[in-house]
Amino acid sequence: MTHIVILGCGFGGLEAAKALASADVSITLIDRSNHHLFQPLLYQVATAGLSAPAIAAPIRHIFAHQRNLTTLMGTVTDIDVAQRLVMLEDGAKLTYDYLIVATGATHSYFGRDEWAAVAPGIKTLDDAFEVRRRTLLAFERAERENDATQSAPWLTFAVIGGGATGVEMAGTMAEIARHTLHGEFRRIDSRQARVVLLEGNDRVLPPFPPDLSEKARKQLEKLGVEVRTSCRVTAIDADGLTFTSAQGEERLVAKTVIWAAGVAASPLGKSLGVALDRAGRVPVEPDLSIAGHPEVYVVGDLAAATSDGKPVPGVSPAAKQMGRTAARNILRRLRNQPVEIFRYRDYGSLATIGRKAAVAMLGKVKFSGFSAWLFWLFVHIYFLIGFRNRLMVMADWAWAYMTFQRSARIVTGADGRESKTAAIKRQSEM
Amino acid sequence: MTHIVILGCGFGGLEAAKALASADVSITLIDRSNHHLFQPLLYQVATAGLSAPAIAAPIRHIFAHQRNLTTLMGTVTDIDVAQRLVMLEDGAKLTYDYLIVATGATHSYFGRDEWAAVAPGIKTLDDAFEVRRRTLLAFERAERENDATQSAPWLTFAVIGGGATGVEMAGTMAEIARHTLHGEFRRIDSRQARVVLLEGNDRVLPPFPPDLSEKARKQLEKLGVEVRTSCRVTAIDADGLTFTSAQGEERLVAKTVIWAAGVAASPLGKSLGVALDRAGRVPVEPDLSIAGHPEVYVVGDLAAATSDGKPVPGVSPAAKQMGRTAARNILRRLRNQPVEIFRYRDYGSLATIGRKAAVAMLGKVKFSGFSAWLFWLFVHIYFLIGFRNRLMVMADWAWAYMTFQRSARIVTGADGRESKTAAIKRQSEM
Repeated sequence: MTHIVILGCGFGGLEAAKALASADVSITLIDRSNHHLFQPLLYQVATAGLSAPAIAAPIRHIFAHQRNLTTLMGTVTDIDVAQRLVMLEDGAKLTYDYLIVATGATHSYFGRDEWAAVAPGIKTLDDAFEVRRRTLLAFERAERENDATQSAPWLTFAVIGGGATGVEMAGTMAEIARHTLHGEFRRIDSRQARVVLLEGNDRVLPPFPPDLSEKARKQLEKLGVEVRTSCRVTAIDADGLTFTSAQGEERLVAKTVIWAAGVAASPLGKSLGVALDRAGRVPVEPDLSIAGHPEVYVVGDLAAATSDGKPVPGVSPAAKQMGRTAARNILRRLRNQPVEIFRYRDYGSLATIGRKAAVAMLGKVKFSGFSAWLFWLFVHIYFLIGFRNRLMVMADWAWAYMTFQRSARIVTGADGRESKTAAIKRQSEM
Repeated sequence: MTHIVILGCGFGGLEAAKALASADVSITLIDRSNHHLFQPLLYQVATAGLSAPAIAAPIRHIFAHQRNLTTLMGTVTDIDVAQRLVMLEDGAKLTYDYLIVATGATHSYFGRDEWAAVAPGIKTLDDAFEVRRRTLLAFERAERENDATQSAPWLTFAVIGGGATGVEMAGTMAEIARHTLHGEFRRIDSRQARVVLLEGNDRVLPPFPPDLSEKARKQLEKLGVEVRTSCRVTAIDADGLTFTSAQGEERLVAKTVIWAAGVAASPLGKSLGVALDRAGRVPVEPDLSIAGHPEVYVVGDLAAATSDGKPVPGVSPAAKQMGRTAARNILRRLRNQPVEIFRYRDYGSLATIGRKAAVAMLGKVKFSGFSAWLFWLFVHIYFLIGFRNRLMVMADWAWAYMTFQRSARIVTGADGRESKTAAIKRQSEM
């Protein structure tokens, strides 16, 4: 039987696998983690609004009833397209007749990997926990300081990158400081916290039209965020960051720095034997296969695809559409039918900013503020995987909306309460 | 103004702080973590039934409106009862007029601390995540093995300790294998997993009467747990454990071992300058203060208290009652009134075993099975902190009951999907 291997269960891999549900093939779906992550809401986990299980579904459970599919949790280290082999970390090898590579992208520090330790990004659940931990602990530390000079650095939060993730993070962090934590401290006033958003371009949300960027900026400022555009970060350390702007070089003292800039394609692209583009993405043919290998497809953020001559953006609807097209093209080849050319259908762009604040663009229709926020809410709950998660997220959000409270304000790990196991391990390692 | 310092926000510390809500005093509540943990349901986090935020509430939020109380997140390293000083990890010192020590207990490996790495216990949220991770990953590993000989050790789960926690863990793990995961694997049959519960005594749940222990054993066996009593574990390693029983020495090959035996009092008891009991607990006077220091109270699992000549058990109702008594006695001393003698009111004992299985003893009334399980459910939801958490837990459980699904089957951390930050940190450390 034809064996199709799918690497990665993000939006692209998930949709490809589903599109093959009724095909007479055997599918192996490999992912490093045991869950599909609804990444558009990951910032909500980072800002303590949602618990991890609310936005993650076990892959194995999603496909429990798709009998032609086997889920394997494992890390793929290499692909041999000549021999049609996929190599796993533990030495296991899998052969394939068709391969769909959907391993996506992670965040990139533009060659400054030392910044990772002082400015965590937000791409996985563990990243989100780390950001949540740092943010909540910063307020705790501030409360322990004796004067405002010492607490101010702990009450300054910098978000680098004014794209969708940075804007969401900054808006929500301002909301936490002004509303969620207000009244819970005795020595500090959480509302005095500064949230500074730094963007390299001359406006936030660069993929949006300038008037919506301007609306986003106004909404951010209303929420209490200081927006700095045309800024280039040159250094980050444990006490803050240095950046250059039109005003020259500036120093921002901030104990918490969040990285929401820069994306790099999955390193697995390198093993496909084709020349990658500048961002490390894999150029694909109009049918989404790679040159010379009609049995290898690349979809999602890892693919440098074009549609009607324009580059396809790295967004989840594009990844889903590519996943479905790749699956259909494999079935067409199996039936000796001509393949389908990928065409990206752009349904619009949406970015949320915070409570009752968002911007939206549907075709030529642009709107912002409360109506855009309601629309964003509806779309995200609708697309969230699994009936149960939708219900739970709705309950969480309804509660948060009414009370300003956030349900997941729990610090665990390193600086939280250490487990006995961890403590003993640490001692025995020392 | 009189300054009362409370160390620890478990059940004892929490109740003491609440009981002082309307007093004209100033209270500082110090805890290592930012949340109060509803420990009786921690096994549900470990077995993927609940998310962490469902059973943990931010301490700061609980006391937002209690204006006489300041919450500090910090680790206390020492107490100087002569000078009335509490020392924190960061060098800060706090003076007190009255002190309530409620730092509880953690799990103990009876001097075999090397077992911590191979047999995690369940006392903090991080512990619970570690157990959840190991359990879920064991099934994933089993699915990747090629034959039953290799997958069997991954499908064998040992729980050491047949007290309430061990019984809950074993029962729930059997339920996961038989129901939750059934049908989601292609190479293994999750129902073939073995869950072995090992207890040193001749029966499980030793604090209960023998007939209820027997009922618990029967219910466990019905759920698919192998119950082994009168067993003494002599060695644990990464591949399993060795124990002696009436049949002599036996070896159990099991890749996952959970530690639910042995409790040790908080090491802070040592700094109080009184002779501790064998379990490291602090003997207290009838009013719960320590000998020679009527201004220092010890409550909860750290206290070796007696009531009507009988030792007070280390259970949450006792901790809550002690917390309230200590608070009242401080207020009595401030008013120069005679102190109150602590008397433990035993409302009964309850232990859950799994779906529709539990044992209960209320005074002389004993019952088990479905009715005990319903009663357990009601009691735990009722006492769970915070109105919102109660609703969320009820929703989770109603869902789990109807569908056999568990909502928190998400693996994060070490062997889950590694974050970019963690990967870079690791590389730069290597």
